[in-house]
Amino acid sequence: ADKMTSTPENMTCKEYVDLNPKSWAPVALWVTSQDTQFKSGDWVALSEQSVAEAPLILEFCKKKPEGTLKDYLASKK
Amino acid sequence: ADKMTSTPENMTCKEYVDLNPKSWAPVALWVTSQDTQFKSGDWVALSEQSVAEAPLILEFCKKKPEGTLKDYLASKK
Repeated sequence: ADKMTSTPENMTCKEYVDLNPKSWAPVALWVTSQDTQFKSGDWVALSEQSVAEAPLILEFCKKKPEGTLKDYLASKK
Repeated sequence: ADKMTSTPENMTCKEYVDLNPKSWAPVALWVTSQDTQFKSGDWVALSEQSVAEAPLILEFCKKKPEGTLKDYLASKK
């Protein structure tokens, strides 16, 4: 798969809301981990953080469907 | 989000094939990293591996739409 077509690099908020809910946490993990260097990374902690982050992204995206997941990341700073 | 509803724990192959393609690599990462302890984990390597793995999962899943992502993992062993 092409890197740009099989990753959520340019996913819009509307696309996120419309995803199969079972992919919300993995996409959250992917997006929030970009530019991260895992150090003593622990999968359980990372995945639980993503499960917790998914509803925050949804909330942001429902308010701003024309936005992107990058806007969400920017909004956290 | 509930852990079982926002993660692909029980995702079927048909669901994977039907996903928004932009979530293929993140779901691949999630599924293949279960039970992994990241050590000197490096996000670039992990994410590129997932981009490469997505078409393998798709190929498996197109042949066996009634299967699950766990079946894919089992098939690799």
